[in-house]
Amino acid sequence: MTSTTCVKELFTHIIDEERHTSVKVTVVGTGQVGMASAFAMLTQGVISELALVDMVADKLKGEMLDLQHGQAFLRTVKVQASTDYSVTAGSKICVVTAGARQNLGETRLQLVQKNVAIFKHIIPNLIKYSPNCILIIVSNPVDILTYVAWKISGLPRNQVIGSGTMLDSSRFRFILSERIGIAPKSVHGYIIGEHGDSSVAVWSSVNIAGTRLKDIHPHTGDPDDPENWNEIHKEVVNSAYEIIKLKGYTSWAIGVMISTLCNAILKNQKVIYSLSTLAKGYHGIEEEVFLSLPCVVGEKGVGAVFDQKLLPNEMEKVKASAKTLHDVIKSLEL
Amino acid sequence: MTSTTCVKELFTHIIDEERHTSVKVTVVGTGQVGMASAFAMLTQGVISELALVDMVADKLKGEMLDLQHGQAFLRTVKVQASTDYSVTAGSKICVVTAGARQNLGETRLQLVQKNVAIFKHIIPNLIKYSPNCILIIVSNPVDILTYVAWKISGLPRNQVIGSGTMLDSSRFRFILSERIGIAPKSVHGYIIGEHGDSSVAVWSSVNIAGTRLKDIHPHTGDPDDPENWNEIHKEVVNSAYEIIKLKGYTSWAIGVMISTLCNAILKNQKVIYSLSTLAKGYHGIEEEVFLSLPCVVGEKGVGAVFDQKLLPNEMEKVKASAKTLHDVIKSLEL
Amino acid sequence: MTSTTCVKELFTHIIDEERHTSVKVTVVGTGQVGMASAFAMLTQGVISELALVDMVADKLKGEMLDLQHGQAFLRTVKVQASTDYSVTAGSKICVVTAGARQNLGETRLQLVQKNVAIFKHIIPNLIKYSPNCILIIVSNPVDILTYVAWKISGLPRNQVIGSGTMLDSSRFRFILSERIGIAPKSVHGYIIGEHGDSSVAVWSSVNIAGTRLKDIHPHTGDPDDPENWNEIHKEVVNSAYEIIKLKGYTSWAIGVMISTLCNAILKNQKVIYSLSTLAKGYHGIEEEVFLSLPCVVGEKGVGAVFDQKLLPNEMEKVKASAKTLHDVIKSLEL
Amino acid sequence: MTSTTCVKELFTHIIDEERHTSVKVTVVGTGQVGMASAFAMLTQGVISELALVDMVADKLKGEMLDLQHGQAFLRTVKVQASTDYSVTAGSKICVVTAGARQNLGETRLQLVQKNVAIFKHIIPNLIKYSPNCILIIVSNPVDILTYVAWKISGLPRNQVIGSGTMLDSSRFRFILSERIGIAPKSVHGYIIGEHGDSSVAVWSSVNIAGTRLKDIHPHTGDPDDPENWNEIHKEVVNSAYEIIKLKGYTSWAIGVMISTLCNAILKNQKVIYSLSTLAKGYHGIEEEVFLSLPCVVGEKGVGAVFDQKLLPNEMEKVKASAKTLHDVIKSLEL
Repeated sequence: MTSTTCVKELFTHIIDEERHTSVKVTVVGTGQVGMASAFAMLTQGVISELALVDMVADKLKGEMLDLQHGQAFLRTVKVQASTDYSVTAGSKICVVTAGARQNLGETRLQLVQKNVAIFKHIIPNLIKYSPNCILIIVSNPVDILTYVAWKISGLPRNQVIGSGTMLDSSRFRFILSERIGIAPKSVHGYIIGEHGDSSVAVWSSVNIAGTRLKDIHPHTGDPDDPENWNEIHKEVVNSAYEIIKLKGYTSWAIGVMISTLCNAILKNQKVIYSLSTLAKGYHGIEEEVFLSLPCVVGEKGVGAVFDQKLLPNEMEKVKASAKTLHDVIKSLEL
Repeated sequence: MTSTTCVKELFTHIIDEERHTSVKVTVVGTGQVGMASAFAMLTQGVISELALVDMVADKLKGEMLDLQHGQAFLRTVKVQASTDYSVTAGSKICVVTAGARQNLGETRLQLVQKNVAIFKHIIPNLIKYSPNCILIIVSNPVDILTYVAWKISGLPRNQVIGSGTMLDSSRFRFILSERIGIAPKSVHGYIIGEHGDSSVAVWSSVNIAGTRLKDIHPHTGDPDDPENWNEIHKEVVNSAYEIIKLKGYTSWAIGVMISTLCNAILKNQKVIYSLSTLAKGYHGIEEEVFLSLPCVVGEKGVGAVFDQKLLPNEMEKVKASAKTLHDVIKSLEL
Repeated sequence: MTSTTCVKELFTHIIDEERHTSVKVTVVGTGQVGMASAFAMLTQGVISELALVDMVADKLKGEMLDLQHGQAFLRTVKVQASTDYSVTAGSKICVVTAGARQNLGETRLQLVQKNVAIFKHIIPNLIKYSPNCILIIVSNPVDILTYVAWKISGLPRNQVIGSGTMLDSSRFRFILSERIGIAPKSVHGYIIGEHGDSSVAVWSSVNIAGTRLKDIHPHTGDPDDPENWNEIHKEVVNSAYEIIKLKGYTSWAIGVMISTLCNAILKNQKVIYSLSTLAKGYHGIEEEVFLSLPCVVGEKGVGAVFDQKLLPNEMEKVKASAKTLHDVIKSLEL
Repeated sequence: MTSTTCVKELFTHIIDEERHTSVKVTVVGTGQVGMASAFAMLTQGVISELALVDMVADKLKGEMLDLQHGQAFLRTVKVQASTDYSVTAGSKICVVTAGARQNLGETRLQLVQKNVAIFKHIIPNLIKYSPNCILIIVSNPVDILTYVAWKISGLPRNQVIGSGTMLDSSRFRFILSERIGIAPKSVHGYIIGEHGDSSVAVWSSVNIAGTRLKDIHPHTGDPDDPENWNEIHKEVVNSAYEIIKLKGYTSWAIGVMISTLCNAILKNQKVIYSLSTLAKGYHGIEEEVFLSLPCVVGEKGVGAVFDQKLLPNEMEKVKASAKTLHDVIKSLEL
């Protein structure tokens, strides 16, 4: 294509066009999770600049074009994509969704070996071009890989966040809300600990307008609960497996979760979400592990961790999660 | 799961829970286009109730669960899915994305035979449960299938809309905007006619702040244009083919386009978009065909068609599109 | 101005332009509260049609023009205004902000005499043109006037809502959030009872991530609390008086509250807010009064009332509120 | 109030709480225009931090509290206010609405003398605390005061923007849209030149879907136009006067305009709006004046000016505006 002088001569450019201050987010990995996250951030107006990185150049270009062609209907966002990490320069947040996907029947922990190697390539490249970014790790097993990203990146602990049980908590609240018949945002409750089979439903936190389900019926959520509320936690744990079985992967819920989390960071909201963070020192955890606890999220990532009051059995389960995770971490070569 | 009396007894239900007035949209087809449309409508807060219909029950349930699990992060939306059309009852809009997908190398017109049969099943079922809905047809070849849906449904012409060249126009404006260096929403221009190889770029409509590109350089968009602006139209026509080649399908741009169109209808915006509508009587078209013209979109669908001033060569191309489409329509058994 | 045939002839109108289904809200009273509510609903995209009613025709026209002139920057909304209630026909919600404003030093209860007379004019006119609308009463004293509106309107109890302590609860959560250093939406707590001097802070409901402040320190909120948390409640009660003293009226917080409430109704969200509702039968209240309790809000208004667990002293205060309100109601001539 | 140790001890603060990167905007002047702008930016989620400055401490505190009390219903925003400009430190944009208000019967130019003195206080204080901000001038006479702010601030021309005829253009499009019966965003047209009595309606730019009104009827907008379209321009010019007469001031339309403009800057949208900018060199203007021309707006302010094709009579009017404005500027002591 030749020049476009006939139009360009009508614009007097007052400034050079380099960009410095816009709200830029990078998504690494253009699989279903990465793309749902990117699309949610665009449709919700969370960002003004998006960089996509993947190893597969064709797929990458296809996704970029597809996002770009919708821009006339959105608040304008600059979308770039490349296999070269220089495209990510100046990102405020880098979201890592790359890695082997959790296959049907495979545990999250079985993925770890493959993904550590991938992270040794990704993380240093992100830090090279955005040395002060917030890293959000979504790849599974997320608690292990968030620890790995923290170690490889050299970033302070607040800047390395795992998506953790923020999605589990959302699933928990949705299923509770369906059973009760009100909106998910009016049912409060947290899933903490490991994102996966050993996650912990904090039944003592579940409340409606400050009235705890355990105030109404003390056994709510216990194994001997005649109303079987604890089946909801089992349903949450099985959700990823079930959806993978039904449609092959999960994407929408994690996508809108990532968009919500990035928005909380970029707007410095100081809102509390269950996220994978360095957990040593909470609830008697002595190991240097990442697992999910209620975190105050702002522009520097995890600004504070909230020391939720747990029942003794809830605390024991979190400590057991920590131990399980630490056993994996000990065996890693970083 | 047993009863949930312990919580439910705390709510005094004043009303019975039947719903009548909420903003409900149905999406038929849970492929990439249908799901991107549904996800965009949810993340953009366009609707408060969504029904999904497909023939594959597993996929359908997986998509429903995946959307539901993100609801704690969204303005609450009721999401239902079923292979049974009764789930669609009371929809204000039904978006039809079902049909065989356009494969690499296949023309849009080659799809028609397969999809008419599918529509004979879908459309009467939608009308049965939402007799006064607006039908938005996205399946390809869209102009033919919108005509088919109009005939099968028995709805007045304003209530049957094909996505047509609304997306082509968006691609056109995006590529123009990139070349010029400003936002797509500040570059105005229309693609009309058939959605596909014979679409018509209305170069006489292309303008920035009311200054037409043809005012600056009269040959803009012509075959002999030394600046080769017409390559942009070729790029638009090739977009779908290229993205299918690169990533296997198109989804994001069409998804956000459908969300934008539904919003315009539900909010009665009276905004103008290029959409496939009954074109007989415009620009000398004598055949009863659907193709894209600038339409005023409001709560009753296409409230008016705008009789854009075209150059003679632009008008000839639209008439040729109409003839091509009519040749296909004549051969259909409805 | 003469005809506009030169443009209009270019549009083929397919439908007649009567409107039936759009999302219409009426605001009665174009004072600071009414206008802030209207402006918030427009900027937040909550509605697609707005009707304003007031007795002062000049002011009314000025406000209508001022809102209309901003529409090119908003999702299009139809804005109409008139001293004649026919402009309100077909509203889904009618928000009543009219009435004598609370002056400095005047109690909310002193306003009642003036405002009942005004309501005898307003309410029947609204019901005449929107017989099945939801009434939201904002005028003060709000609990009394919501009762009055319920009686005059003849609507079922779920369709008559007082703004009540929804704003008090928002102020409460904001001040708590400032003291604690996190976002208001991560601090949960309710003010219930009368909107005014006798409102009740439910300290037993105040929690962060399900951990109650009273779990950390049992005396939180009590008169003998060494940390003086109860001063926050006093600050909430004084807020309206203080802001009226400082700027002459309150507007922004009540405006965004009304917009949020209307959105919850129009989207059928089933979210819980503290709102003035028929309270007989809750917490030992025997009188037929309206005061604020946690309500589940959806498209039919208050779909359910939540029977929050209260401490004995909290329950006593609510009962005392009810008695005070009933004493006023008894003396009213309706 | 004493300490809040009982809660604060539950948070482990990982970072110190200083803020560096959030999206901060300052509004100077808490009159009707300033507050409508601030409220629109909050309700539309444009910013995450707001600073208000005024000379009247009571009014300022009242407005701050009123905005803060609505925050539980909004995406969290930090709102601060002070008579001391240190509160504005680190703003990306400073919006100046302070100045004597345009009274009924007073021309915009008569205000200039009072407001230059005020700007000599405001502008250096803003630059002191946000040396690289974008200045948006709203105070009237806006074209003169934008020039004054440019001179006093020492900022490059792209960083000093007057609201100019962006609102006039919005009013123009709204009135056109009402007359034609479609949405304002589907009617394109520009008012340029001086914001005020000598503003220029660019009738040659007015178009629907690229079809100019002048293509349909060549005399559209001319003095001898039998359809009297030019009355619409007179209505635009009279709008401010009329609204001031009816309600005492203008606020909502200018508020949502400022919010839209700030969003375009903060999101680096590169969208075109009519804004007051250094006009020397365009359309034969030889004087160093600010008046409104179509500007490309991005994160550095006015990134480019678009040299719209004007008819000779349109160009003459713009030149006359420039001369009028320059006569005022020459008489100023800066």
